Amino acid sequence: MIAGIIGATGYAGAELVRLLSGHPKVEKLTLSSVSFEGDKIENIYPNFLGRVSLPLLKAEEVIAASDVVFAALPHGVGEPFASACMDRKIHYIDLSADFRFDDDEAVYSAWYGKEYKYPQLHKNSIYGLVELNRQKIKELAKKGAVVIGNPGCYPTGGSLGAFPALAKGLNCPDSPIIVDAVTGVTGGGREPSRSFHYAECADSVSPYKVASHRHSPEIARNLSMMAAAGNNSAPKVIFTPRLAPVNRGILSDIYIPLKKEWSVTISNANLPPSKEIEAKTNEIRKLYIDFYKDEPFVRILPEGLTAATNRVRQSNYCDISVHVDINGSTLIVTTAIDNMVKGAAGQAVQNMNVLFGFDEKAGLDAIPALF
Amino acid sequence: MIAGIIGATGYAGAELVRLLSGHPKVEKLTLSSVSFEGDKIENIYPNFLGRVSLPLLKAEEVIAASDVVFAALPHGVGEPFASACMDRKIHYIDLSADFRFDDDEAVYSAWYGKEYKYPQLHKNSIYGLVELNRQKIKELAKKGAVVIGNPGCYPTGGSLGAFPALAKGLNCPDSPIIVDAVTGVTGGGREPSRSFHYAECADSVSPYKVASHRHSPEIARNLSMMAAAGNNSAPKVIFTPRLAPVNRGILSDIYIPLKKEWSVTISNANLPPSKEIEAKTNEIRKLYIDFYKDEPFVRILPEGLTAATNRVRQSNYCDISVHVDINGSTLIVTTAIDNMVKGAAGQAVQNMNVLFGFDEKAGLDAIPALF
Amino acid sequence: MIAGIIGATGYAGAELVRLLSGHPKVEKLTLSSVSFEGDKIENIYPNFLGRVSLPLLKAEEVIAASDVVFAALPHGVGEPFASACMDRKIHYIDLSADFRFDDDEAVYSAWYGKEYKYPQLHKNSIYGLVELNRQKIKELAKKGAVVIGNPGCYPTGGSLGAFPALAKGLNCPDSPIIVDAVTGVTGGGREPSRSFHYAECADSVSPYKVASHRHSPEIARNLSMMAAAGNNSAPKVIFTPRLAPVNRGILSDIYIPLKKEWSVTISNANLPPSKEIEAKTNEIRKLYIDFYKDEPFVRILPEGLTAATNRVRQSNYCDISVHVDINGSTLIVTTAIDNMVKGAAGQAVQNMNVLFGFDEKAGLDAIPALF
Amino acid sequence: MIAGIIGATGYAGAELVRLLSGHPKVEKLTLSSVSFEGDKIENIYPNFLGRVSLPLLKAEEVIAASDVVFAALPHGVGEPFASACMDRKIHYIDLSADFRFDDDEAVYSAWYGKEYKYPQLHKNSIYGLVELNRQKIKELAKKGAVVIGNPGCYPTGGSLGAFPALAKGLNCPDSPIIVDAVTGVTGGGREPSRSFHYAECADSVSPYKVASHRHSPEIARNLSMMAAAGNNSAPKVIFTPRLAPVNRGILSDIYIPLKKEWSVTISNANLPPSKEIEAKTNEIRKLYIDFYKDEPFVRILPEGLTAATNRVRQSNYCDISVHVDINGSTLIVTTAIDNMVKGAAGQAVQNMNVLFGFDEKAGLDAIPALF
Repeated sequence: MIAGIIGATGYAGAELVRLLSGHPKVEKLTLSSVSFEGDKIENIYPNFLGRVSLPLLKAEEVIAASDVVFAALPHGVGEPFASACMDRKIHYIDLSADFRFDDDEAVYSAWYGKEYKYPQLHKNSIYGLVELNRQKIKELAKKGAVVIGNPGCYPTGGSLGAFPALAKGLNCPDSPIIVDAVTGVTGGGREPSRSFHYAECADSVSPYKVASHRHSPEIARNLSMMAAAGNNSAPKVIFTPRLAPVNRGILSDIYIPLKKEWSVTISNANLPPSKEIEAKTNEIRKLYIDFYKDEPFVRILPEGLTAATNRVRQSNYCDISVHVDINGSTLIVTTAIDNMVKGAAGQAVQNMNVLFGFDEKAGLDAIPALF
Repeated sequence: MIAGIIGATGYAGAELVRLLSGHPKVEKLTLSSVSFEGDKIENIYPNFLGRVSLPLLKAEEVIAASDVVFAALPHGVGEPFASACMDRKIHYIDLSADFRFDDDEAVYSAWYGKEYKYPQLHKNSIYGLVELNRQKIKELAKKGAVVIGNPGCYPTGGSLGAFPALAKGLNCPDSPIIVDAVTGVTGGGREPSRSFHYAECADSVSPYKVASHRHSPEIARNLSMMAAAGNNSAPKVIFTPRLAPVNRGILSDIYIPLKKEWSVTISNANLPPSKEIEAKTNEIRKLYIDFYKDEPFVRILPEGLTAATNRVRQSNYCDISVHVDINGSTLIVTTAIDNMVKGAAGQAVQNMNVLFGFDEKAGLDAIPALF
Repeated sequence: MIAGIIGATGYAGAELVRLLSGHPKVEKLTLSSVSFEGDKIENIYPNFLGRVSLPLLKAEEVIAASDVVFAALPHGVGEPFASACMDRKIHYIDLSADFRFDDDEAVYSAWYGKEYKYPQLHKNSIYGLVELNRQKIKELAKKGAVVIGNPGCYPTGGSLGAFPALAKGLNCPDSPIIVDAVTGVTGGGREPSRSFHYAECADSVSPYKVASHRHSPEIARNLSMMAAAGNNSAPKVIFTPRLAPVNRGILSDIYIPLKKEWSVTISNANLPPSKEIEAKTNEIRKLYIDFYKDEPFVRILPEGLTAATNRVRQSNYCDISVHVDINGSTLIVTTAIDNMVKGAAGQAVQNMNVLFGFDEKAGLDAIPALF
Repeated sequence: MIAGIIGATGYAGAELVRLLSGHPKVEKLTLSSVSFEGDKIENIYPNFLGRVSLPLLKAEEVIAASDVVFAALPHGVGEPFASACMDRKIHYIDLSADFRFDDDEAVYSAWYGKEYKYPQLHKNSIYGLVELNRQKIKELAKKGAVVIGNPGCYPTGGSLGAFPALAKGLNCPDSPIIVDAVTGVTGGGREPSRSFHYAECADSVSPYKVASHRHSPEIARNLSMMAAAGNNSAPKVIFTPRLAPVNRGILSDIYIPLKKEWSVTISNANLPPSKEIEAKTNEIRKLYIDFYKDEPFVRILPEGLTAATNRVRQSNYCDISVHVDINGSTLIVTTAIDNMVKGAAGQAVQNMNVLFGFDEKAGLDAIPALF
């Protein structure tokens, strides 16, 4: 099989090159880049020297030569390429936000400042959070070429941590779910900017776009879908991202207010956690383990561990730990993903595997790097 | 004046040496260390070479020779030193938790595993969060020697960000206030351990002691006191700390559910923040500015800025930004402090300044280091 | 095949677990650990959760159950295990220094403070720098079980960069070759210590063991062997290591004084490099390319690139760049390796591949991680 | 006194703002910036909020209003400002390379691509390495306004480490002196670029401009001057810089081949350093201590310590350690400076202090930050 990557020289694109180079079903890659057309990938990323030596072509050439196309492009430019792929009847996996809001152009436009020029495309497309939509993706693939809207990095880590609670209706629907995430810098992309200039972000932690990040509505939509799947009502969502000086990884703390029947009554919240809290935590952990028991990339951590980005580094895992707060009324879930793998390129490959009926772990079997 | 430091070779102790060396009212320092007694401070911290060359004595010698004593010791060992200082009628400023819960030994014992052996001491002592207790500290100092319980690092950043909202009763008392903080590694102290081994915490973010950190009750107590001062009811508090690979700094995101009269009604929370949210944010920012207008070390950031630890580095500032969430129902406050300065040694010096009636900024006038 | 790892819970041991788990010829692993005997590897390194779940046994059990044994132990304890392996007629690959100086016990004893208790072992053993000794390793393996002394991390990066110059006699034998290397922290191992405490080594660069590091004689011996292979005389060697705040990687700058016939005559060394210098650099680069043309893990960088540790990260590559100094009289070679892979565990696997006649790249085909 | 800073919004300019704000003789600052003219300094660097609130003017306004002018500008644009200062008879301290090669325009032009348009200026100017030229600076200042060429960061750390050896003629003049330096990223300035993009330089070490950095001739010139002062001949110099992921600091390893009479004869260089080497090291350390005994900012480290950038952080110190190599024939000197202080802004303030006859430590008395 030949896999094409449009936008191969951005960070997500290059990570796709790396992952797909080791995919057992991919025999060949074709790459394009607007910025470096005519050059070779190993000149842009010398890591590839002696391993991947491929010319950077035009997007059109990539589409014409491939059996599946990945697009790792800025927001707002993917539709024509998606359309061309549909014409060629090949699957198209878009890592931008362009196909994440297919049912709600108003939300997409309000946050990304673009309109749909190929509305028809958005009727055949699907949001590629496999843990949410696996079955639908498989069914669509049976009918023909599919456009996949690969999820945003924050929505991936944020949604996976809240899904079991929402599906099972643990949450009190009146109070908001809070997702407070800390991300590494590769999420900011390859283009130099002051925010990601070494001296500006080293040795510092800072929130940004507080209460106004465009991943907010994507998380809220995902949680609503999962709540609906469990016949529960849609929650409100608050999302705050922070930047920390690490290359890869997103660590999310998710605060889920518990319904009365899932809460623990506490006599004195100023004392250390009671045994009842421990017991409730264990009960919820089991529920999480059960919910994700067939998922190849979700690991519910055993008692005593919290999620840490350096334990999923360079892998497609999402690690999850659950905790009931000292007050007994809030579930705290921590999740860790590698933003470039499960949060971008790895998840895109996972989508390809589902679309083609490959083993879902194919090309994604790296053990998390130890350091 | 001669200032004594017991426990001068831990991180907080050494930071005290550095700060007090530049204090205009401190003519001389005396230092003690159990681990390095008999050695010299510049051999333990060669940064001091040519600048501070002092022997490391016994604690008793320090107390006997000083006009004020700082103790930067592990929890649970400070009482005898405090008692000795009271006998000598000199102020004693303790950086451990030993005098932070003077009214509530049960809470202290439950979290720190120790009991008060000198209960009398805890009647004359006071919690040294100057922005909360300045007046009380001054009054106590008029009467004689005072024991100060210097606040914990997390409680400092967490409390200062929530105080104005609680004093003015902005918060809905039924829902918990959430403090989600990211800290640098110096909070873990100088003793080598696996958690702070470079290869284990570099390039990673991880929460720890989720829902069970002993700074929880200290934050809750502080917020209750401030709420009470404004005739408002005590809030519930949830606190989660995370570790990030930076040396100094604590960044806190504080989620305060707003009372109905302070909320903004939103038609569609999936759209970007409305003008009403902006207006409410500005209103609350003004309230914060007004609340802290006489505080020398609190900076309310202008519109467009969020707190960042690299803007308070090596200073005694607490930077604060305020934001109303996209749903209109939660106030998000971000605060940044240097955990070793405002979160420990700097705040201790601030307490000394208040006790002695010095300019509160004396010895604490460093402009935050740019990088 | 069953591969055994003695000392599986140190950093090099754990990296062996990770690499060998993906080796196409290794069907099973057996692990031992003195510190964690009875526990499971995934409890020590939760990265392995869901991937490698193996008990930590006794070393004797590992040896009894394996077809090849790797030892990642402190210096001075490996001989009995090597002896047991020889008795069982299975290959033994030792990552410590215990079998790096088989011909020169005096040097080993002077630097490592131990004596050979099984002198016979050192007659059948061989230094496992494959690029130096591949042929000899293959020949020994034909005769029976082999003990491999896996090279030190610094000697690997330092030697590979100097080998072509020494084999071809480019260097002036009267002046010393200087190897100035910067290493990441994982070389210091898993045991917490003050030198590798985050707050002590973050944001800092420092040399250590200047002019007295025990990798000095190992580098000198390697360079002498290669010089001798080219009928050239043994060079003097100066070696200085520095620590920088990175997890993985060794960057070596190697200064090789050039013989007159390889020097470039310069009229004014205060001016930018002349074309003659460029030409000589290109000539030497070709010589290096030719020297290493059959080596699977050495990459001679094209003009314009210098070695960088982040381009070999998590791979078994040694990247090399060559430069003639502005004075025309010194060759400057820069090399980059991942100290945990090519500098330790990867090189050990490479040795196994050679011993067993596997494809030398088996299990070592990771493309360097992009970030 | 009023101090003016032209180019106040670059890193060196902003560091000057910070340092001069605390200078006891500076009553007022005036600032200019081409990029941010009309804005205020605290908007560009919010660290200054509440501390330094100054408008960014035109360079001409700064010159007209000041008693001394600092220029922190790109290379090649400073001459007109210097000229204007001379017309106003006020001292001008230039942090670029424009006045570092006053005697050798050919070298300056070859490396910086510019020509002198105000040749007269270069006759009254002087290279501001105070430890080399203090007396000359003082004498010039007696005669009138002076132009100071503030030294480059690498030449500062590189020269100070070699000066005593050259003044005393320890070095063998036939062999080159090698300066191998590792720098932090702030040396690359504030302008975002790929080389200093966080994800590209984090967790990596890499050399750059090997054998072709324009600080080479500046170091060579300084060493020649010091050698000449001791009636010794000019040495050849090789200089290689590397980048490491730290914000501040330059660590230099300086290899100085020793003359026969300063060498130690070694029977076996493969054994650990002999007592003779230790004795010679002590002898040379004493010589260094004596050489720098009156310098306020040079610290010769005691036996057992090597220079480390985190021990001079945010101070104007240059720490130096000396070592004789295991072969007995090379002196290895390690030096550490903060590239933004002693390597740029701090040294410029030191020059101001010398020009005006202030205490040389005025405004530069910060104890190195502990972390």
